[in-house]
Amino acid sequence: MNLEELRKKRPLVHHITNEVVMNFSANGLLAFGGSPVMAKEKEEVEEIARVAGALVLNIGTIRKEDIETMIKAGQAANKTGVPVLLDPVGAGATTFRKQAVQRIVKEVDVSVVKGNAGEIAALADIPLKVKGVDADEDGDAVEIAAEAAKRMQTMVVVTGKTDVVSDGEDFTTSSRGTPLLGSITGAGCLLGSIMAACMAIEKDKKGAALFALEFYNKAAERAETKAEGPGTFVPHLLDELAKAYD
Amino acid sequence: MNLEELRKKRPLVHHITNEVVMNFSANGLLAFGGSPVMAKEKEEVEEIARVAGALVLNIGTIRKEDIETMIKAGQAANKTGVPVLLDPVGAGATTFRKQAVQRIVKEVDVSVVKGNAGEIAALADIPLKVKGVDADEDGDAVEIAAEAAKRMQTMVVVTGKTDVVSDGEDFTTSSRGTPLLGSITGAGCLLGSIMAACMAIEKDKKGAALFALEFYNKAAERAETKAEGPGTFVPHLLDELAKAYD
Amino acid sequence: MNLEELRKKRPLVHHITNEVVMNFSANGLLAFGGSPVMAKEKEEVEEIARVAGALVLNIGTIRKEDIETMIKAGQAANKTGVPVLLDPVGAGATTFRKQAVQRIVKEVDVSVVKGNAGEIAALADIPLKVKGVDADEDGDAVEIAAEAAKRMQTMVVVTGKTDVVSDGEDFTTSSRGTPLLGSITGAGCLLGSIMAACMAIEKDKKGAALFALEFYNKAAERAETKAEGPGTFVPHLLDELAKAYD
Repeated sequence: MNLEELRKKRPLVHHITNEVVMNFSANGLLAFGGSPVMAKEKEEVEEIARVAGALVLNIGTIRKEDIETMIKAGQAANKTGVPVLLDPVGAGATTFRKQAVQRIVKEVDVSVVKGNAGEIAALADIPLKVKGVDADEDGDAVEIAAEAAKRMQTMVVVTGKTDVVSDGEDFTTSSRGTPLLGSITGAGCLLGSIMAACMAIEKDKKGAALFALEFYNKAAERAETKAEGPGTFVPHLLDELAKAYD
Repeated sequence: MNLEELRKKRPLVHHITNEVVMNFSANGLLAFGGSPVMAKEKEEVEEIARVAGALVLNIGTIRKEDIETMIKAGQAANKTGVPVLLDPVGAGATTFRKQAVQRIVKEVDVSVVKGNAGEIAALADIPLKVKGVDADEDGDAVEIAAEAAKRMQTMVVVTGKTDVVSDGEDFTTSSRGTPLLGSITGAGCLLGSIMAACMAIEKDKKGAALFALEFYNKAAERAETKAEGPGTFVPHLLDELAKAYD
Repeated sequence: MNLEELRKKRPLVHHITNEVVMNFSANGLLAFGGSPVMAKEKEEVEEIARVAGALVLNIGTIRKEDIETMIKAGQAANKTGVPVLLDPVGAGATTFRKQAVQRIVKEVDVSVVKGNAGEIAALADIPLKVKGVDADEDGDAVEIAAEAAKRMQTMVVVTGKTDVVSDGEDFTTSSRGTPLLGSITGAGCLLGSIMAACMAIEKDKKGAALFALEFYNKAAERAETKAEGPGTFVPHLLDELAKAYD
């Protein structure tokens, strides 16, 4: 992953995403070096997805009519080789959500699925109890990532105390970051946006995902040293995302 | 109200709320110790409301189709004894809004209604002039709270320079806080989320409401001492909400 | 433009705007001295637009059904002489967006159109390449502003490294501000809200627009001196917008 190249190209990342985190995701992606576009009208999503560097589908506040829109955008992205990142927010919380995201995975060729253990388990039908969308999950994240990647035949990123990237065959873990990431909304969603931007530049999906994960967690660690709590953590995290680390 | 218990249980607060404040409400509730879920698809709201610790209905950016969704969620909450907090944002601003919120109050058993004097007056058909959703209101807040509580037979919280909690029989006032709360959007909405989280833990509704009010206002007072204006007030308020006060 | 008068009257600015920036626009407008209302239900927008001080139509996350809503609000504003500011976010990005905004301009008497060079060029059918909604645009901003103002017979504000205000006959440029404004989402949208608030108070549209532009850019320059990056820039910008400059 070449960060300088990314910041020069400023890849367009098309988001059909959740309303809670739109502003934070956009500012975080801008800070990192990408160019966010958030468009969700069915009539225009294909036109945007087609020319984007990557597409993010995040079901955090999905409505019934959005399923079709996400599929249209996803299929348009697939046709022109635009990588698609799926964030199955709260997939285990309701039947509607689980069915929605399973339908998306079936109809769209998703490059990477990123979520917490509970969300990934629900999506891939691996039994696990879920509590809310921001809750920490028990269970073996490595096992869930590997099993889900096999079942869905795609790369899977499970976030949590330990983050896991797996393509079904091998896996890499990372235990960086800070608990403050769990105390703000949209921390995982923004990681998804940054990962998508990396995939727009770097063909090696796993390399892109790991770079995004490490960069994001390092930025969070540095932001933590400047923050006095979850509130001041947010602007500092955005500041740190705009910097370069080696 | 036992704050330690709340922070241990992290009650799930289901929001069907206004798009302007979603991020701020979610971050504020997370800081305080709750677990926000924002879902608004009609097909899934019953499933979530049923298992939530509390339900917040906030009409700030309501659309026609949301009325039905809010009623479905509210009735599901009622069936399992989940407390419902209603925030009638801008209820006096339009006929549509007033009718929407009056219909919700009629069809859902609301545990507490929280708003400024103008909003509460409009909802309860007590004559008063309203200007905008963030405007300070004149009028006797105590009188409005008591009269509205009687008419709607529920607990009413009127926020303003003086905050009033009334169940129609007696009332309690609080004059803490800072004018900075009036200079940011969603300060009242976030108070509602925190109040709802307290009601998820504490059966005594009035005790829960008063605890939330006092805690929130104290946090705001402390944040004010660190802020240089309304912009820096926001992250400091979120930091303070994450702390413990005695 | 009399800022003291504005802050005393706190003009109501009705927004039908994009979901990414709602919170930032509301907080920025509150800091500056206006009173934001964000309502988008077709049944109520006329009632609000009619009594507002100004109306902002921003197509950033527009859906098909919003076009009709914006036109209804715009026409209601027109009937009572309420100034209308149009922000054609991403107008050049898709056919849907371009047609939507061109229809709005045709059916509503817009007082001022504010956008970057690419958006204004797309709206006025002046050939230019656009890349994303936050991208800097090449091309002669002065020429585009003047030509667009002539074609649409309205005042046009083109933002960028140099900001241009033109009524089709003469023009004024301003090169203040900071590149940090380009590194956060919604900087242009908030400028639109502030400009609309000024137009609610000051009948001289050009005077109002120039005052807003200068005030906003000065606030941004001061915020830049306090910021450590795009993240901390945001709260400092909001703080500065709440101050008075001479």
